[in-house]
Amino acid sequence: MTKTKVAILGGSGYTAVELVKLLLRHPHAEIVAVSSRQEEHLADLHPALLGRIDLRCKPFDAAALKELGVEVAFGCLPHGTSMETIPPLLAAGIRVIDLSADYRIRDARVYEQWYKEVHHDAANLSHAVYGLPEVYGARIGGAKLIANPGCYPQTAILGLAPLAANKLIELSGIVIDSKSGVSGAGRTPKLTTHFPECNESVSAYSVGNHRHTPEIEQALSDIAGAPVSVIFTPHLMPMDRGILSTIYATPTRAVTEAELVELYRGYFADKPFVRVRTSPPATKDTAHTNFLDVCVKVVRGKVLVLAAEDNLIRGASGVAVQNFNRMFGYDERTGLL
Amino acid sequence: MTKTKVAILGGSGYTAVELVKLLLRHPHAEIVAVSSRQEEHLADLHPALLGRIDLRCKPFDAAALKELGVEVAFGCLPHGTSMETIPPLLAAGIRVIDLSADYRIRDARVYEQWYKEVHHDAANLSHAVYGLPEVYGARIGGAKLIANPGCYPQTAILGLAPLAANKLIELSGIVIDSKSGVSGAGRTPKLTTHFPECNESVSAYSVGNHRHTPEIEQALSDIAGAPVSVIFTPHLMPMDRGILSTIYATPTRAVTEAELVELYRGYFADKPFVRVRTSPPATKDTAHTNFLDVCVKVVRGKVLVLAAEDNLIRGASGVAVQNFNRMFGYDERTGLL
Amino acid sequence: MTKTKVAILGGSGYTAVELVKLLLRHPHAEIVAVSSRQEEHLADLHPALLGRIDLRCKPFDAAALKELGVEVAFGCLPHGTSMETIPPLLAAGIRVIDLSADYRIRDARVYEQWYKEVHHDAANLSHAVYGLPEVYGARIGGAKLIANPGCYPQTAILGLAPLAANKLIELSGIVIDSKSGVSGAGRTPKLTTHFPECNESVSAYSVGNHRHTPEIEQALSDIAGAPVSVIFTPHLMPMDRGILSTIYATPTRAVTEAELVELYRGYFADKPFVRVRTSPPATKDTAHTNFLDVCVKVVRGKVLVLAAEDNLIRGASGVAVQNFNRMFGYDERTGLL
Amino acid sequence: MTKTKVAILGGSGYTAVELVKLLLRHPHAEIVAVSSRQEEHLADLHPALLGRIDLRCKPFDAAALKELGVEVAFGCLPHGTSMETIPPLLAAGIRVIDLSADYRIRDARVYEQWYKEVHHDAANLSHAVYGLPEVYGARIGGAKLIANPGCYPQTAILGLAPLAANKLIELSGIVIDSKSGVSGAGRTPKLTTHFPECNESVSAYSVGNHRHTPEIEQALSDIAGAPVSVIFTPHLMPMDRGILSTIYATPTRAVTEAELVELYRGYFADKPFVRVRTSPPATKDTAHTNFLDVCVKVVRGKVLVLAAEDNLIRGASGVAVQNFNRMFGYDERTGLL
Repeated sequence: MTKTKVAILGGSGYTAVELVKLLLRHPHAEIVAVSSRQEEHLADLHPALLGRIDLRCKPFDAAALKELGVEVAFGCLPHGTSMETIPPLLAAGIRVIDLSADYRIRDARVYEQWYKEVHHDAANLSHAVYGLPEVYGARIGGAKLIANPGCYPQTAILGLAPLAANKLIELSGIVIDSKSGVSGAGRTPKLTTHFPECNESVSAYSVGNHRHTPEIEQALSDIAGAPVSVIFTPHLMPMDRGILSTIYATPTRAVTEAELVELYRGYFADKPFVRVRTSPPATKDTAHTNFLDVCVKVVRGKVLVLAAEDNLIRGASGVAVQNFNRMFGYDERTGLL
Repeated sequence: MTKTKVAILGGSGYTAVELVKLLLRHPHAEIVAVSSRQEEHLADLHPALLGRIDLRCKPFDAAALKELGVEVAFGCLPHGTSMETIPPLLAAGIRVIDLSADYRIRDARVYEQWYKEVHHDAANLSHAVYGLPEVYGARIGGAKLIANPGCYPQTAILGLAPLAANKLIELSGIVIDSKSGVSGAGRTPKLTTHFPECNESVSAYSVGNHRHTPEIEQALSDIAGAPVSVIFTPHLMPMDRGILSTIYATPTRAVTEAELVELYRGYFADKPFVRVRTSPPATKDTAHTNFLDVCVKVVRGKVLVLAAEDNLIRGASGVAVQNFNRMFGYDERTGLL
Repeated sequence: MTKTKVAILGGSGYTAVELVKLLLRHPHAEIVAVSSRQEEHLADLHPALLGRIDLRCKPFDAAALKELGVEVAFGCLPHGTSMETIPPLLAAGIRVIDLSADYRIRDARVYEQWYKEVHHDAANLSHAVYGLPEVYGARIGGAKLIANPGCYPQTAILGLAPLAANKLIELSGIVIDSKSGVSGAGRTPKLTTHFPECNESVSAYSVGNHRHTPEIEQALSDIAGAPVSVIFTPHLMPMDRGILSTIYATPTRAVTEAELVELYRGYFADKPFVRVRTSPPATKDTAHTNFLDVCVKVVRGKVLVLAAEDNLIRGASGVAVQNFNRMFGYDERTGLL
Repeated sequence: MTKTKVAILGGSGYTAVELVKLLLRHPHAEIVAVSSRQEEHLADLHPALLGRIDLRCKPFDAAALKELGVEVAFGCLPHGTSMETIPPLLAAGIRVIDLSADYRIRDARVYEQWYKEVHHDAANLSHAVYGLPEVYGARIGGAKLIANPGCYPQTAILGLAPLAANKLIELSGIVIDSKSGVSGAGRTPKLTTHFPECNESVSAYSVGNHRHTPEIEQALSDIAGAPVSVIFTPHLMPMDRGILSTIYATPTRAVTEAELVELYRGYFADKPFVRVRTSPPATKDTAHTNFLDVCVKVVRGKVLVLAAEDNLIRGASGVAVQNFNRMFGYDERTGLL
């Protein structure tokens, strides 16, 4: 059986451990290296991996990865660090699926405005492909560098894609009210994610300035063929994982719910990981899977879309494997069902 | 010290137990009777009350309550049942603070449309006062029958009141995206509130048809002096208590955040239980208190309001005590700080 | 590739949905039928299964299952019901892995004493094999009827097996203090498992009379070759899944921790699903896996064992698949890693 | 009305905020100062206090506190820091209720052995009174320095006191299996208390070496009049607050449950904050109160005690106020019901 040798960059966080679990179950992937500044055994960083993988993290070294026969690297590094780490890999002929935000925004000035960092890698930014398979699928197979999409954006983009593609909604003033589990904030302890602070509580954060805003707008503008602007408000929920986005848009003409359900079913007919439903999805229905559940309603003249996913799988590591499958010619669903 | 004798109708649920705790701490209240079909000791229904109150629930009997000297009854019965139970109390001269929805909607036809029940008590409906002290305060002191406000509506009404009163927002298409803890669903076990179903999950429910919609619109229309219509979407959060409403409105003219903060501070200046903040409130900041925290922002030309409360205290039993204080001439804050 | 046709009896609960997920991923299993009194599509009972399996539940019918070519049925029915349902299957030549307690206790009188029900199927009880592969593995391959082990018992039995087998501990007065997530209580809504009752709370239940007690004692007595008696106290934890048992035993001679760790490593050397650790396991380390993590300590002259598992996978559906693998000649780990 | 002026040392943690809430409601306490290295407004450190107290934290200064008329200081500082801070207060004639562990262990060598720090304040250690009112009540009224008891120890000591006092149990080998909410670990973010690490998980920690062990043994030895030794295992639960201790002891003679319940009722007859129950307590029954619920059972010849409390109120700030009441001649229950 064909095996593609893969490496993971940045082994200490939540997306890395989910990637390891998915890839261990994947018939065509072989994890040959994991990099981290914490030079420890993976199972010491993540006790859940005890007895499942026998790898010690090593400092990042592009040449060493090349020598090991690595064909693709999954980048689980923070933004800013990614764009320092990835160029030598690409130069060595190793393809990259980057889970950070560094190559998602095509316009470096927009990146700098929202991320407050200068972009250092315009060369690779120019050919990076935004790795949302349901929208940019045709370009993923041949990509050298995939900018794996953000967790929130996927719910917003896929939730609105059929409407935007068909010009059924007004393209400005779209309200995206998103609710996320705490793992979305990463694994570094902070007061806001300290258990007794965020348990039994709900709150909004980054109101009006969350960095996923331009990513959502860029993809929706591509789909609509015209500029889209959104009001995006993320909220922290007292749970480990899961995102629910509740989206409010104004239709450009009178629409019925039945018509919209039909439209969504058609749009996602050949997209195995999007499930169009008529009942409101609970994030739990998608937990630990690569499915994104979407439900469209008409309420008092507004279109209301509910989109749910597991933020670590569909929102990060699962869609990364979906991209891996497309890049290496495996069935898109391999290792993900 | 003056003591007002009170009764609680329907002792088995969450609003009743919270009322008992608040009233036990109230210097001017004496709980003399609790009614319930479950004729058990209160501490058997609610082990938290062990050693704190020595009362056995008895079947409802208006005459017996009158004989005990009850001056006011707190109704913790389901809607539908309330309007059967309350008329004899009022007839006996006992004032009532009804925590159900039965007397909240002034127009019986609107009640019937949303609650799918015929209203049987038009006589008392005509003089019931909607017990939101910050808006209807002037009428509460003299009321015989208070329709205690719903949990969600208070966040929406108080969150929008300064804007509606000053005609600063468009009155239709207001989006109210609310997140509630599970105690809001009551104490009767159901699959949707079974722990392994709703824990670690977020979902919307009653999309487009939640019964608090007309209550929100009635009060906001009063405040604005013109019809208001909202898109209200409640969500279930995996936590015991707390509501956060995220509200999106379109200003009728250009506004600045500073101006709106000023407006809110002025509007709530003499309202001791509304805290105007400039940082987004977490529901936990209001947990177990009668405070409602509100924060107003301007985001990309929209006005965004965040309003948080404890759904059982501010959203039900605490505001009921606040109404009790106003009805019997005690300082509004008594027993609530 | 060989496929074994399987059926699931009782499709509405948590063990059934976990079984479906595991078996869908199993290369040698094909789910051909699911029985339930609720004649609905599986994905309507469990929205998580949407798009993953296209089966409608039907009433139980042994002959129909035989006709479909079913070779083995997984019983997810309540105790009492199981012993009514299973005899016709066995009579039709269909092997059974029963997840209920009906065939776990060899002595029908002991069953009746703890379960307060008369046992109706002595014939099959006599040949049922207790399906704990790490202890009774040799008999599982040829079994017609597997009594799949209880969730709590596995942590207690495997946690103590090396000590009991080597007569290193006193066999009476062993304290087993177990903590379980709420899914262990099943899917039927009750006040004790209503979210606002059990969330943010910990409590013991069935103190001194939990039905898993005789099951634990039977297996440990087998292992020790002498009667074992335990004090078993289960506790409900505010989480979905996971069991941690903290076990206190008195050594029969002076022992060192190093010696016991060595003993455990040897005992479980060829048991792929038991992970011997030197750090205390968190239930989360085993979540959604078939691993049982065990850690042995010596504290002030007592032996202390910590054993953690996922109550729905290792504690029920996962070990059932492990038994399935052994019964049909597949590698024990198939579909479980 | 008499008001005692109080100060709080170390305002940033959870015990401080709970103390503030309790003292604000106390008719005879006036908070005149809060010290902290974080020189911020209290409501900025704890948004829940917004609008409830208008105090800015200042660096610790014993002379300044004296000048403000402070009669008693509540110490909410970490152990080690406490014994540096408290001597000047006592020297200035300010009484102290210290919530740290520094003055709990009478023997400085035992302190050093468990806390790995040298004790610097033997002088004050010699007269400190262990502030568990139900056991050391007679000495509290006149104390200059109260060593407020630990959270876990109170459940163990009060849970076993009637048995130890009456020599009904063997004094060594007592098993205390305790389960605590995460707030017990304090407010400093750490990986172990990071939400996605400890949520949905249960684990033991500090197995065999938790610092509350000598505190439990010291008090129980006092009560028994003979040395007591325990096996104490704390566990972290995915909840904010609450401790349940499940205690296993061996009776020295045959006992009945009825007899023990009688014994417990008698022992705690005049102790208003200990509730003797016959049903197993849930931590939630005691949440946000100063009650400690205790239930005694006989299981297969062992005595089993279940003791529940709120770790922040009864386990820290509530019992501190109870001690304050006794020290200043107020009814023990003032401000705590």
